[in-house]
Parts: sequence; structure tokens; C-alpha cells
Amino acid sequence: MVEADIGARIVARCRSLGARPFSESSDILFRPWLSDAFMNAQAQVDGWMREAGMQTRQDAAGNLVGRLEGATSDAPAVVFGSHIDTVPNGGCFDGLLGVVLGISVVEALSRAGRRLPFAIEVIAFGDEEGSAFPVSMITSRAVAGIVDPADFDLSGPSGTVTQTMRARGLDSGALGEAARASTDVLAFVEAHIEQGPVLEALDRPVAAVQAIAAQRRGTVQIRGVAGHAGTLPMAMRQDALAAAAEAILLIERVACDLPEAADSGLVATVGRMDVGPGATNVVPDAVSFSLDVRAGDRRMRDEAVRQIESGFAAIAQRRRVSIECTWLQDLKGAACDPVLVSLMQEAALEAGGTGMTLVSGAGHDTMVMAQRWPSVMLFVRSPGGISHHPDETVLESDVAIAHRALLGFVDRFAQCLKVSP
Amino acid sequence: MVEADIGARIVARCRSLGARPFSESSDILFRPWLSDAFMNAQAQVDGWMREAGMQTRQDAAGNLVGRLEGATSDAPAVVFGSHIDTVPNGGCFDGLLGVVLGISVVEALSRAGRRLPFAIEVIAFGDEEGSAFPVSMITSRAVAGIVDPADFDLSGPSGTVTQTMRARGLDSGALGEAARASTDVLAFVEAHIEQGPVLEALDRPVAAVQAIAAQRRGTVQIRGVAGHAGTLPMAMRQDALAAAAEAILLIERVACDLPEAADSGLVATVGRMDVGPGATNVVPDAVSFSLDVRAGDRRMRDEAVRQIESGFAAIAQRRRVSIECTWLQDLKGAACDPVLVSLMQEAALEAGGTGMTLVSGAGHDTMVMAQRWPSVMLFVRSPGGISHHPDETVLESDVAIAHRALLGFVDRFAQCLKVSP
Repeated sequence: MVEADIGARIVARCRSLGARPFSESSDILFRPWLSDAFMNAQAQVDGWMREAGMQTRQDAAGNLVGRLEGATSDAPAVVFGSHIDTVPNGGCFDGLLGVVLGISVVEALSRAGRRLPFAIEVIAFGDEEGSAFPVSMITSRAVAGIVDPADFDLSGPSGTVTQTMRARGLDSGALGEAARASTDVLAFVEAHIEQGPVLEALDRPVAAVQAIAAQRRGTVQIRGVAGHAGTLPMAMRQDALAAAAEAILLIERVACDLPEAADSGLVATVGRMDVGPGATNVVPDAVSFSLDVRAGDRRMRDEAVRQIESGFAAIAQRRRVSIECTWLQDLKGAACDPVLVSLMQEAALEAGGTGMTLVSGAGHDTMVMAQRWPSVMLFVRSPGGISHHPDETVLESDVAIAHRALLGFVDRFAQCLKVSP
Repeated sequence: MVEADIGARIVARCRSLGARPFSESSDILFRPWLSDAFMNAQAQVDGWMREAGMQTRQDAAGNLVGRLEGATSDAPAVVFGSHIDTVPNGGCFDGLLGVVLGISVVEALSRAGRRLPFAIEVIAFGDEEGSAFPVSMITSRAVAGIVDPADFDLSGPSGTVTQTMRARGLDSGALGEAARASTDVLAFVEAHIEQGPVLEALDRPVAAVQAIAAQRRGTVQIRGVAGHAGTLPMAMRQDALAAAAEAILLIERVACDLPEAADSGLVATVGRMDVGPGATNVVPDAVSFSLDVRAGDRRMRDEAVRQIESGFAAIAQRRRVSIECTWLQDLKGAACDPVLVSLMQEAALEAGGTGMTLVSGAGHDTMVMAQRWPSVMLFVRSPGGISHHPDETVLESDVAIAHRALLGFVDRFAQCLKVSP
């Protein structure tokens, strides 16, 4: 198969799962974990894996695992993986592309009759998007052996995790059996659409990912004093909204100006905001807004949070308001393995991508897998930076380059093993 | 009656109309124009006027008009007036205090048996608060002869203006008959609670008002581009909320820093704000907020608006967003008559108030009356700056000083007339 055809074929496979029976809805693409649509998609992916020469099985978490043996059987594996669930009204490529690319790598290796010193596995994970239950990544956490049994009682539209799994013949109590031994896995590799605009802005098809951002989410509450918009002089105001405006610009400034902020993927976002009492002729006394801070480097994120909080204190004092920040979520993020990153950089560059690395601001199964095994990601350009939307797409030529980069990565990794086993 | 008793009596009269049958509700004070509660209050005020020696009548707009003749009958009048309607959950003093103070002035003159070269009238207006219909001040506009017949079809909870008036034996078609001849009125005087914190901050009981603020109200729409809070780098954002934050601080800076801003009562307020799409992990693409700009001097207000709009343009260009301002309301405001203001300043100072003048940021019937006749206001300190709230109050000693200042004003005005008839 010529390379242009490989890109086209991978894209066609992803698009072929974009509608019924691989979606729960006939209007939009929605494929939550363990839904009928999900099981249909898993069966189709299973077919592609077998066609590529893999042996397949469903593990105790319901993950589809395909395996191509290496030179010796029971050799440890390089594992490709991503998820096949989607958000409601999602696109065809978020998650699924990484699985289909993994299969295409196996196909190419099978076709070439190559015997590697390691097995290759492809795992199609389940619940990365969290669209079935209030938690996500149970399935990759099961593989990594870090499941929290408290999650099993959480409810989704078809009952609890336990009940929903049971309906598919799965036993949440036996989820631990999906855990892989440390020595089973040499490396975890996830290809994924970027879901952002950086590669497009750089005019590059693919790039290695150095880290998945550590994230903090919180709510900021500002309390001032209400007053009549006509009768309260400017100098006497304790305007909660003016204080919030200053706080928002402070957040932006810290995220832009910290040394090496951009390289570390530092971003800070205020996405939601409520103003009270919310009348045209009343000076606001209460503002609450969300704050989301992420960076590839956790220390960078925490330094940003520190500067933001100390800036808040100064604003509060100067404006005679109170500013209180409540942190609701602290995700550690994950650094990719430096050796794997440099192999992926070389492979990406050689395949026609860029040698630079990106930070993933969004979460991925790699966050989980990297807690147990050396891991790396490859990002594929997202035209328009669009994701979680029906317009989400990829360029066939970029996908062909991603395929080539992943093959190059496997070669380089094999080479590495020879040098330092 | 000794002076302390005068303050206590006026306050007691205002408080006595704070509940049923002078309120529509037993829980809160609410007295919209032409409601049963309103008619009951009007009847009570009518009794006080007669007791003070005035002849009373209801004019074609339903206003209660009390008159104390001067040395000659049919002499032109110095007219005291304010409104006796309230907002929902209002206080006892907003409006009513000015009417009761006017009656107390007449009482003092009657008791002293003084014959002035002019009549004194007290008008209890109806719909200053706009809590009955989407427009307000129909009743003072009727007296000033500037009613808009289009208003008669506007609907409130008990039908249109015309229907509601008819239920009280009033004919909106005959509203023009309430208009007073120019020569009937020498001066209009409105005493009112300040509804703001300035006199309290200055520790002064009363002050003359030099102008009622000109006001512009509008809505500002900002359009940016939405994006993923994790994957969209800071440098590539077109964040509508960050632009709004900058716009809000610009508005505040203009209102604080324009030369003579504070003296002219310039204030600018963003009281309401909506952020879209409004998700924690999405960079906002749409913000809309209210803008309210007021100043005692219309040119000052318009210069502030000009600087704000030109600042918006700069922010929009720099941040690659659009900022559009739609002006919904343009109230001209009103300058008080300079001669009357200086007489009121002297009277206030002599009575124990301050000789300085204030700008009224809130609207009053004086805005309407000043379009036809020389007018002036006297503000009475509002403890805590509270108004439109059950906690709205006044100090009895301040009210006594206001009573004295109004009497002093009448004396000075009579003196003036003698000098330059």
C-alpha cells in the first residue's frame, strides 16, 4: 500500500465508526463506554486487529487487547493504546485515531514479516472521556493496577459502574485481573489528535509530546459591597466586579509572563463567571468565577498558582474586598519518558514532522499509564484546533506521516534495546 | 413645637405609612402608583395638608396638591414636591420625606401667621419609581406639560395606564389639564434622602443639590473565539472575558481620572455580566455586560463615554475581538437653578448642614420640573447610604435641620424677590 493510501485508509476507518450502529444517536456521534454503540465499535476494531495479524482478547476491564508476538513468545510488549469512547456530539478521531494508527503499525510490521525483540500490543480503552460515569479512565487505571473500588458505586444513565459492567458480562470485583505486571510492558505509546491549534500554527503535521499538563481547578469568590450605581461615588466603591476584572488580568499576565511559561505549556483560564446581584444600576457585591491552571511542569503550575494567589491578596487589600480561592481538583499530570520522547522527536522529524515537543493541555490515558511505565505520545495536527465537535478532523497526509513516525519510533526503540538491553 | 420634636414627628409620619393599609403587602412596603395602598397614603397626606392649613385638590394626573395662599390670592407659588409611591420592598423615606417636610414648612409658616409674597404648594406626585408601569414620572410630567400620550397604552399589573387611571376616576385623555402655567410656579423645591453615602462620609446632615446626573445606559457585547482551556496557548487566545476585564478597568479608570470627575458626580458602573459559553474548561467567546454612566454635567458624561468607546476600540484591536456598545437610554439630567442652589447652600449651612453641593446620581421628579421652572433639591443624609430597602432610614436630628433649612430657603427666596422682583 502506498503511503497516501495508508492515510486515507486510516481516516476512512475512523469515519466509518462515526454513525449508527457505532453511535447511540442517529443525529450526533455519541459512544459512551459499554453502550451498544461502544460494543459494536469494539467488535469492529477487533476485526481490524485480527486482520492485521493480532491475537485479541477482552481483559477484565472490558478493554480490547490485540497482540502481535515478537521474536520470542511471551516477550514484553511495546503497547499502543488510546480510547474508543466519545463525548456526546463528538468527532471521529479523538481516541479512535490512536487505536487505528496502532493497528496500522502492526499491519505494516506483519506485512514486512519483521520479528521484533518485543511484542506489540494495541489496547482500545473504554472510558477516557468520562461520558458514562462521573469518573473517567477506569479502564486504563485497571491496566495500570490503580483502580479505586469506591468508583464502582458511582451512577451513570444505566446504573452503577458495577451494574453496567455486569450487563456486559464483566465483574467489577475482578477488575484487578486486568492489571499488567510491570515487566509485561516496555513502553506505552499513544497517538492522538492535538485538540489544539499549535501544530496548525507551526504548519507541522505531527510532534512528540513531552508531558501531559498538571492541572488545578478551583473557584474564586469575591465579596465587595453593593451600592447604587448613581449615588455611590467611585472613590467609595468596593466593587466586586472591578476586583474580578483585575484578578482576571492578573491571571492572564502570570500565565503569559512567567519565565518559560509558553514552553512548559502554562495556561490559565477563567471560563465561567457569575455576578451578583446582577442589576444594571447596582454596584456588584459578589462575583464568583472558575479558575483552571495547567502546565506540563507541575512546579511551573504551582508557581503560577502561588503568584496568582499572592496577586489576589494584593488586589483584595487595595480594593477593600475579600477574595477567596477554593481549589477543587489537583491532577498531577505526567511527564513522558525523556528517552522515549527523544526517540519520538527523531522519528517525527524524520517522517516529516517537527522535532519540537508539545505539552498536552488535555488529559489522556497516558496520564495513567505513565504512572507505571515509560510512556510517550505523538500529536497529530487538528485543523482549526477543533475537537469534541462534529467538525473535528485530520488531514490524510498528516495521518500517513504519523503512521511513518510510529514505525520509525518502533525501529529506534528496537535499536535502543540492542544497545542497552 | 421644639425642633427635636419636629424631626421626630416628621420621621414618625413617614414611618406610619410603612405598613398596611399604606402598603400592598403585609410583609414588605410596596406602594405602587394608584394602588389601594397609594390611595390610602394619599388620603392620609391630604389630612396632614389640611391640618397644616392648606387647601387641597387632586389634579388631572391624580396628584395631591395642597396650597397655602400668600399675601394675595392667586399669587404664584413656591412648590415643594416629591413622590409617595415606593419600589417593592422599599423604605419609608424615599419620596415621602420630601412631601412631609414640605407640609412641615407650611405648618411652621401657618403657625407663625406669616404672609409671604407668594403661595406655598406641596405636591405629592405618583409614579416616580416606575414600579407600576414601564415608564415613570408621568405625574410630574403632566404638571410640567410634557406627557407622551404613547405612554398611556403601556401595561402594568392592573392593565394599561389609561385603564388603571380610569379605575380611579381619572381620564388619561385629560391629563393635559394637570399642566401648570409657567407663571404659576416661581420655584420647585424637592427635599429627598440622599440614597448614597456622601453626606455620611462627610459627617453632614444636609446639602443642596446642584444637578441631577445625566445618564447613559447601554449594553456592551464582546465577541472572541472559544477554545479548549488546556490546549489553546495563551498567545493564541482571543478571550472575550479577558477583553471584558480590560474594558471594565478602563471604564473605572475613565470615571476616576477625568479632570473634575468626582466634583461633577461622574460614575460609571458595570452591574450585570454574562459569559458564554460559560464552562470551566472553555476559553469564553462571548461576553455581554451593562454599562451605566452618569454625571451632573452632561458634557462630562459624554466625554467619559467618548473615552470609554475609544478605549474599547483599542482593546478590540489589540486582542483581536469585537466590542460593540449599544446605547439603550439617554437621560439628559437636569441642572438646578444656580440662584436657588446658592440660596439653598446658604440655608443649609445656616441650619447646620454643609455649604457644599452634591450631584444626584439617582433620578427625581426634579429632573422633570427643572425643564419648566427653576428648581433645587435638598439632600438629607442616608445612614449607611441605604435606600430601596427596608433598612432605609434618616436621623431625626438631620430631618429637623432639613426642616430649618427649607424654612431658611423660603425666607431667603422671599428676600430675593423683594430685591429683584
